[in-house]
Amino acid sequence: MAQQRRVQLCTQRPTSTVCVLGTELSLDIQGSAPKDAIAFHVQGTPGVKVYVVHETQSVKLPSSVTRWPLATGTEVLLTMEAISKDVGDEKVRISYFGEASGVPVGRAMLYLTCVEVSLDADTGRSGSVSRTLVDKATWTWGPDGHGAILLVNCDRDDPKSRLMGDGGEPKSQLTDNRDTTVCSYEDLKDMSQMVLRTRGPRTIFTGHGLVLHVGFSDADKVGVFYGGNSVALEEYKHVLGGEKLAYAVKPSQHQEESIFYVEGLAFPDAGFSGLVAFHVTLLESPEKGLLETPIFTDTVVFRVAPWIMTPNTLAPLEVFVCSVEDNEDFVAAVSALAEEAKCPVTICPLPENRNDRWIQGPDFGYVAQETPENTSSLDSFGNLEVSPPVTVRSKEYPLGRILIGSSFPRFGGRRMAKAVRNFLAAQRVQAPVELFSDWLQVGHVDEFLSFIPAPDRKGFRLLLASPSACYQLLREKQEMGYGEATMFHGLHGVPKLSINEILGNEALRKFNAYAQSCISWNRDILKRELGLAEQDIIDIPQLFQADDQARAMAYFPDMVNMLVLGRHLGIPKPFGPLVAGQCCLEERVRALLQPLGLSCTFINDFFSYHKLAGEVHCGTNVRRKPFAFKWWRMVP
Amino acid sequence: MAQQRRVQLCTQRPTSTVCVLGTELSLDIQGSAPKDAIAFHVQGTPGVKVYVVHETQSVKLPSSVTRWPLATGTEVLLTMEAISKDVGDEKVRISYFGEASGVPVGRAMLYLTCVEVSLDADTGRSGSVSRTLVDKATWTWGPDGHGAILLVNCDRDDPKSRLMGDGGEPKSQLTDNRDTTVCSYEDLKDMSQMVLRTRGPRTIFTGHGLVLHVGFSDADKVGVFYGGNSVALEEYKHVLGGEKLAYAVKPSQHQEESIFYVEGLAFPDAGFSGLVAFHVTLLESPEKGLLETPIFTDTVVFRVAPWIMTPNTLAPLEVFVCSVEDNEDFVAAVSALAEEAKCPVTICPLPENRNDRWIQGPDFGYVAQETPENTSSLDSFGNLEVSPPVTVRSKEYPLGRILIGSSFPRFGGRRMAKAVRNFLAAQRVQAPVELFSDWLQVGHVDEFLSFIPAPDRKGFRLLLASPSACYQLLREKQEMGYGEATMFHGLHGVPKLSINEILGNEALRKFNAYAQSCISWNRDILKRELGLAEQDIIDIPQLFQADDQARAMAYFPDMVNMLVLGRHLGIPKPFGPLVAGQCCLEERVRALLQPLGLSCTFINDFFSYHKLAGEVHCGTNVRRKPFAFKWWRMVP
Repeated sequence: MAQQRRVQLCTQRPTSTVCVLGTELSLDIQGSAPKDAIAFHVQGTPGVKVYVVHETQSVKLPSSVTRWPLATGTEVLLTMEAISKDVGDEKVRISYFGEASGVPVGRAMLYLTCVEVSLDADTGRSGSVSRTLVDKATWTWGPDGHGAILLVNCDRDDPKSRLMGDGGEPKSQLTDNRDTTVCSYEDLKDMSQMVLRTRGPRTIFTGHGLVLHVGFSDADKVGVFYGGNSVALEEYKHVLGGEKLAYAVKPSQHQEESIFYVEGLAFPDAGFSGLVAFHVTLLESPEKGLLETPIFTDTVVFRVAPWIMTPNTLAPLEVFVCSVEDNEDFVAAVSALAEEAKCPVTICPLPENRNDRWIQGPDFGYVAQETPENTSSLDSFGNLEVSPPVTVRSKEYPLGRILIGSSFPRFGGRRMAKAVRNFLAAQRVQAPVELFSDWLQVGHVDEFLSFIPAPDRKGFRLLLASPSACYQLLREKQEMGYGEATMFHGLHGVPKLSINEILGNEALRKFNAYAQSCISWNRDILKRELGLAEQDIIDIPQLFQADDQARAMAYFPDMVNMLVLGRHLGIPKPFGPLVAGQCCLEERVRALLQPLGLSCTFINDFFSYHKLAGEVHCGTNVRRKPFAFKWWRMVP
Repeated sequence: MAQQRRVQLCTQRPTSTVCVLGTELSLDIQGSAPKDAIAFHVQGTPGVKVYVVHETQSVKLPSSVTRWPLATGTEVLLTMEAISKDVGDEKVRISYFGEASGVPVGRAMLYLTCVEVSLDADTGRSGSVSRTLVDKATWTWGPDGHGAILLVNCDRDDPKSRLMGDGGEPKSQLTDNRDTTVCSYEDLKDMSQMVLRTRGPRTIFTGHGLVLHVGFSDADKVGVFYGGNSVALEEYKHVLGGEKLAYAVKPSQHQEESIFYVEGLAFPDAGFSGLVAFHVTLLESPEKGLLETPIFTDTVVFRVAPWIMTPNTLAPLEVFVCSVEDNEDFVAAVSALAEEAKCPVTICPLPENRNDRWIQGPDFGYVAQETPENTSSLDSFGNLEVSPPVTVRSKEYPLGRILIGSSFPRFGGRRMAKAVRNFLAAQRVQAPVELFSDWLQVGHVDEFLSFIPAPDRKGFRLLLASPSACYQLLREKQEMGYGEATMFHGLHGVPKLSINEILGNEALRKFNAYAQSCISWNRDILKRELGLAEQDIIDIPQLFQADDQARAMAYFPDMVNMLVLGRHLGIPKPFGPLVAGQCCLEERVRALLQPLGLSCTFINDFFSYHKLAGEVHCGTNVRRKPFAFKWWRMVP
């Protein structure tokens, strides 16, 4: 429905007004009628389309009817289809008639100027801004959806900020969305274009106000920059966002097409849907001393792109590992694996990681420029995983689902901070699943699950740590006569335990039955929430032991806590019982995973990570190829 | 899909577990298989339904196949349909076979107890709690929707709190949702029932934990009370909500059916969708010293009822007016009108209103117990109106739409507080429309619009204050020879202005043209957002004048600021020019409204309200009959 504007007429003096292309004017015929008028005649110049709505029928003029009764239901509507060359170059005349027909009892003249005012963005998601017929004020999901996209400008494109100070620290810690300058053309490229088009006699735009504005609720979510006719970086000024709710577009500076650059400042969150509306309003200045009144508003809506996690099934682009005082061999092993996977490695040096080896830790998101600042002080990212794409009872999750660990609500149970959980849910595109991880000492989901690529079925397998699979394997080896085979070979100072000793430890058996029941509970949730069948799951032999609070820790290096680089897996070396010179745990894992075309490399992280309650996955991070699937094409 | 639970088996010793009615057990056949097993046979007692899922086909046992290959894809699923009389009264036996058939190489026994555990609410919206087949964990809108309802318990049912102190102030200012006691049976009636049903051998419930719990994010939105088997008020304890996230249901106290009472503490708002989930979880205690593990969870979701406004078209039940020092006549006139409308009047006495005559002011919501405390300090409710039910381009708003006044975003423009706007939008059922009211000195939407009931069309008319209709009327009277007729008759000390003087005042004319353009802008918005036609709108003659900041004030009492009691209208007496002894403004308004069956009473509020920048509507409030339409039947 076209925007419609009511226009008052007057028989004493002519009225002048603007008609914005694509809108309708509704004339107040009754309001200007002289006392004795009972009918009217309406006539326009060729550039004006005149309709009389009479008894719910819309009649286009000229019609055979020349005089219309002045009844309550009768309306006169105008539209214009060509932009005026001069102010007031089209007109409409209303003649009023009394009982005695013949000479009109009054006349109202309306001078019209047609202009174009349009605020546009890439609502068609084609990569370019063009005028469109879709409803720019709405935003819809899905393959047939429409509506423009905005990025949160949370990287650092300022060339100066990349320089290190004397102590090696970055000179500026501010990401681009926290300043109000355009620091480089790279910075500008992270912003979306919003184009204000105005056409028509220039004097209209000097006589009328033209204001770009944003609602109070949205203003702290966006920044808008404008460089006028210049392309020089220093000419780009911050004109809207934060405290700035309105920007008066100056007619002297304004051309027929003005390009504004819009950046997002914040990801969707509790209380912020991600939608931001911008408006341009044409204002009439009726008299000096009076306030201006709006006569036309155009609105365009953007959605801030969500924060998206990348599952293990996406190709690796870069591996990150921290170099600390005692992990040289580990760094070398990870680097060798990455080389096999043809994936570059970035070693985060000691001064930058401050001797923190846990690169799945809270600082990483900030370094990787993918996480908003408000999550960085909260829980660790080992407790935040994402599944590959899944379909669950015909509901598609083309970007997978986020998995977070939580406690069962007993008193004092730990949980992921509410702010983080709200944040994750607000992204909408990877609807989080809450798992039960509080039975573990560290309490992270990556201690009992991982995803690996697979050539068949859904394209992946879920790996679950399995105490019962481990007991089954050890019993099998015992039955085969290897009961005296021992674990932890080659590890200095670690007692060498035999299969018989492990199987004979009743406390260990009971604790692992308990650990198994906790994992089984998660298995049930994962099957339900990811739509998995038993064949999509592989049980990886693993034992747990109790800490002094009966919380679980890995008994030997936790194999599911692995690094996945395409088909190359970097698995914590379990140091299992040697059967015929072979570690029977490694042998079993190879037997389970190699048929899927995967290559298993067992990495010794025993002293450098395992003994500090983490493993390979906790000590590395991977930047992956983004999804080919565009998030706006899904329906959350 | 039935909830499924993975159960580990063991060939060394029998396993015992619970099967909750309506759920499925998935047996880990592979996990307990002896080394050489290649096939298995499964057999259950008559109370257990056994299915073998083999090559994606589900076969119910007994079948002609007696031995199944021990392949990765083969699953055994169990269900039970009758509650057990004794612990372990049903069983399933798995026999494993090697290459050489004949004697099994191992056997796993599973002893089963079937119990019922169910958390129910009035998900069918029938007024009673019953077990249901609908998905209790989801909540859907619309005539075919399902899901239970919760009220915000924001009234005061404590008999003690109604007592006044010596100074006349209430003894307790706390509403019922701000305490953690059940103060009366009336209080209990404001709560929704949530029923926990458990059936099965009682020893199961002494050996297992049973916990009622609520998520951390929801806990501050609800309060749950439980009285055990007692009906005595003092036995009701606050068991869940606020800091209390979990309540361990004691088996000694717990019967087969326990009734919990749930109250809402907060209306939907930014960051609170209104949905609250409660869970009951059955816990297995595997060994002393180990934590319990969940084996079954049932969830029921409530939606907190939204805050709903009642439009003028709903029948009045009670009129409120404040008695202050100088408004005796006004109170008498309002009382007389209410008597005509057969509607009781409550006169709020001086000590209680603290000499505040503006009952549409911030305190009223609190007094009327309909507004959350956090809005009471914010904008006035004259700036908050609601339309009657409308349909807009086939989208139905069966409870109407809220109308709020706002500024056009120029610097320093006033606006309704963000918190209030977020709150109103979060209710979802009366999607707010933002109007432009900042051109007015007081800035309230009730200064230029009102709704009245009508027998035809949409059941109502929108009344808009109209300077142009007023000028037209005055010119008409001038042309008829009444140019010397004067306004403000009978008002002591007020200059008597003639029609000629008014029409000759060029500054007044220009200002009213401006006021008209502001109202026209709102008219366009209202037509678009409420789906109105011109015939749904009546222009009420009105003039405005500028204050020293060029903001509009009513030039004579603002007639649209009326009190609507069914077909009885209490309209501010305009004191218009007397034409043939009649006020021509009153005459015109009667001519416009009486054909709709409405009775117009003009109430003199000139000195008591109008001169203080308000009118009849601002000085009264009406409790109306709630909508017959149930809000959950709409689709927002």
